[in-house]
Amino acid sequence: MGRRLVNGSDMGGVAADDRGLQYGDGLFETMTAANGRIRNFVLHMARLEDGCRRLGFPRPDARLVERECADALGELGSGVVKLVLTRGPGPRGYRPPAEPSITRVITASAARPALAAPEALTVRVCDTRLGVNPRLAGIKHLNRLEQVLACAEWTDTNVAEGLMLSVDGRLISATAANVFLVSGNVLRTPDVRDCGVSGVMRQVVLRAAEELALTVDVADVGLEALASADEVFLTNAVAGIRPVRALVGHGEWPLGNVTQLLMAHLSARGEG
Amino acid sequence: MGRRLVNGSDMGGVAADDRGLQYGDGLFETMTAANGRIRNFVLHMARLEDGCRRLGFPRPDARLVERECADALGELGSGVVKLVLTRGPGPRGYRPPAEPSITRVITASAARPALAAPEALTVRVCDTRLGVNPRLAGIKHLNRLEQVLACAEWTDTNVAEGLMLSVDGRLISATAANVFLVSGNVLRTPDVRDCGVSGVMRQVVLRAAEELALTVDVADVGLEALASADEVFLTNAVAGIRPVRALVGHGEWPLGNVTQLLMAHLSARGEG
Repeated sequence: MGRRLVNGSDMGGVAADDRGLQYGDGLFETMTAANGRIRNFVLHMARLEDGCRRLGFPRPDARLVERECADALGELGSGVVKLVLTRGPGPRGYRPPAEPSITRVITASAARPALAAPEALTVRVCDTRLGVNPRLAGIKHLNRLEQVLACAEWTDTNVAEGLMLSVDGRLISATAANVFLVSGNVLRTPDVRDCGVSGVMRQVVLRAAEELALTVDVADVGLEALASADEVFLTNAVAGIRPVRALVGHGEWPLGNVTQLLMAHLSARGEG
Repeated sequence: MGRRLVNGSDMGGVAADDRGLQYGDGLFETMTAANGRIRNFVLHMARLEDGCRRLGFPRPDARLVERECADALGELGSGVVKLVLTRGPGPRGYRPPAEPSITRVITASAARPALAAPEALTVRVCDTRLGVNPRLAGIKHLNRLEQVLACAEWTDTNVAEGLMLSVDGRLISATAANVFLVSGNVLRTPDVRDCGVSGVMRQVVLRAAEELALTVDVADVGLEALASADEVFLTNAVAGIRPVRALVGHGEWPLGNVTQLLMAHLSARGEG
């Protein structure tokens, strides 16, 4: 059984005046653990630190976080660990307190059972778009209503994920994953300088692509590039690489060579 | 003494898996009460209902909300009442539960002491801009990191508010107020179709302007229109109309005739 720890204790709740609740004034990380250890913990903490710096939070204590993740995991050992960090309680008003009392919520839960074969997803393009703002791009902050509205758009359980465009029409990501396209010899993923999240698995895949001497292009990507891509896959820290088999209304893809190469490369390093 | 009620009880906290905390998946209203009654309660509830409809929440029970506001106010009678409504607790993942168990947090606090004379504000233009998204515009949702970052930009206590532009450079609002300009015979306020909040006091002022036969223009407003305006004022439900005296780096304004006319009109109706 996993546990939930709020500031290190399993007393449960969060104060109703917590700025995480009042304004979404916080950050999160969703991580996987195997045998009691968090995968890519250094990358998760680096992104969290970047978020803290940009929101004006004090630098998080990585050792404390790591210890509490282990405590929350407990006998589970393996599973999903979600960390939420907020600017803590405060009086009414947007202005952040000068000396915030940061709230940490760490929740561990069992991973879903692994699939026998790599899951090939059917995805759709969502109507809900992502607002553009360089001040909030890249980091994993708690303002996620756009993703919530996008996920509420479909009920067909055959559709596993939704792709999201920016308000100005660029392909950015899925609701809870980054997206990669393979076109000819080029591995392409959308730039997240002003929209989207700099995913930890996105970083791992970009590094793997470098190790494999693939040509990588981090750039603005239009929906037409998606339709004409040879291979498409999604990445996140929980599910790793997931090939996309079909895009509703736009076509199908085989399980491509580059996708398989990257999956095998990560699998060999225990990043399955 | 005011109180805080969570789902009608003053037990205090909110579950750590509440979607308000996890994703900012919720709405709020900040209201004023005088003699135990909420001002413009019908307008606040209409905006809240609009927000609930657009986020897919069940319609709120206005009578229940009104009763709990009165309970929270208690012996205070007058003050500020903030209502937060979230989609309640849920499992990990953006997808909203089919039958959410809505969380209500109602907090009453004493109003700050009234000023002897109408406060004339000094304001600045913030560097942090507002993302554009018609799906989230107008409603008072809990994704407020942009406002938090904007408020963190300045520490000069002489500067009372910050004006915010959209990412595409239009004047939208202050961090916690709508903005009006008077130019010649025209009262102008930014359109909030794709950015900003449809403020209750903004609606009250627009109605008052109609009653006073002023020419009203709800439109896109550039920063240059602000610099050349004859009068500028801010509105919100807590402070009513507040004239702007100075914009840091852009000039000063006298307390103008139209601003005074509107203030007197609202004051006569007890909307001070």
